[in-house]
Amino acid sequence: MAIYIALMHYPVYDRQARVTVTALTTLDIHDVARLARTYGLEGFYVVTPLQSQQTLARRLIDHWVTGRGAEYNPTRKEALSLVRMAEDLEAVLTGIEQEQGRKPKIVATTARRFAQSRSYGEMIELLRAGGDAPYLILLGTGWGLTREVAEGADYVLEPIEGKGYNHLSVRTAAAIILDRLLGGEAR
Amino acid sequence: MAIYIALMHYPVYDRQARVTVTALTTLDIHDVARLARTYGLEGFYVVTPLQSQQTLARRLIDHWVTGRGAEYNPTRKEALSLVRMAEDLEAVLTGIEQEQGRKPKIVATTARRFAQSRSYGEMIELLRAGGDAPYLILLGTGWGLTREVAEGADYVLEPIEGKGYNHLSVRTAAAIILDRLLGGEAR
Repeated sequence: MAIYIALMHYPVYDRQARVTVTALTTLDIHDVARLARTYGLEGFYVVTPLQSQQTLARRLIDHWVTGRGAEYNPTRKEALSLVRMAEDLEAVLTGIEQEQGRKPKIVATTARRFAQSRSYGEMIELLRAGGDAPYLILLGTGWGLTREVAEGADYVLEPIEGKGYNHLSVRTAAAIILDRLLGGEAR
Repeated sequence: MAIYIALMHYPVYDRQARVTVTALTTLDIHDVARLARTYGLEGFYVVTPLQSQQTLARRLIDHWVTGRGAEYNPTRKEALSLVRMAEDLEAVLTGIEQEQGRKPKIVATTARRFAQSRSYGEMIELLRAGGDAPYLILLGTGWGLTREVAEGADYVLEPIEGKGYNHLSVRTAAAIILDRLLGGEAR
């Protein structure tokens, strides 16, 4: 399996369900990079159209991968080495195509249900049956991926249904999603 | 099942394996509270011996539970209503005993293995067999719970073994631990 993950800062909803660009949270980059390394992903794309935010993220990553942080915390270097920047989803798809020879199937994650929604069990079977085909898991920041992004994906994962509560941070949701899909492989 | 979780800021290790007190991370309080609500826990204890840090945490919690945050984000209020402060583990045990009529069994989580280490499968069976007995899951900040705390626990959960990488944030580790233990119940 060649699995990638992308943290989308655009296009996502704000609290009034308007399409917006969210600001980077550096902690999300650390947390998702560490998850990506834990579950053996091929790469982690941080997606934002804002040049200033891309520059900020590159500085953070450089500090830990080639700067003083690399010596201070080698395990963090290992995780952040997986991070790549992209300005939009199209650029992510192109990047993965360059590495894998074909575009990935897109797996959107949302707190809502869609026609393409799949259970975790179904998605695990699809990943296994897919052989070495690349997959890209999309995470939304803010109030989640837009309907257009979810509907344009090949698959949408079913929401993480808690006991009547469905408001996790993107960091902790990413942890649960990756563990459900790949925890059996990593153990 | 009556399950509690505690985020321990003391006694934990620092990067040189010395026993230390770590600073609160407000984001951890939000993330773990949201997880506690998602998985139907009875309560979430934030444990620190530092009075100034307890005051800080109480201000944060009050803002979201009774202050302006409660109106701004009612779902956050629901999650943060589960948070209690305690100065040490003993105070947590006493608090739970007052609510449940008996002290909880302690389940420590660490990145190392101990004689009492249990697999997730074993722990799920123990929780189910325990009926309404209270359990307390301990999370360590910094470089993790001290050996004494782990060895003093009734059970220690096996580490989350990634693909040769075992360096998750406490937030994302908490998400994986709760989903593995209780995700089947919540679904």
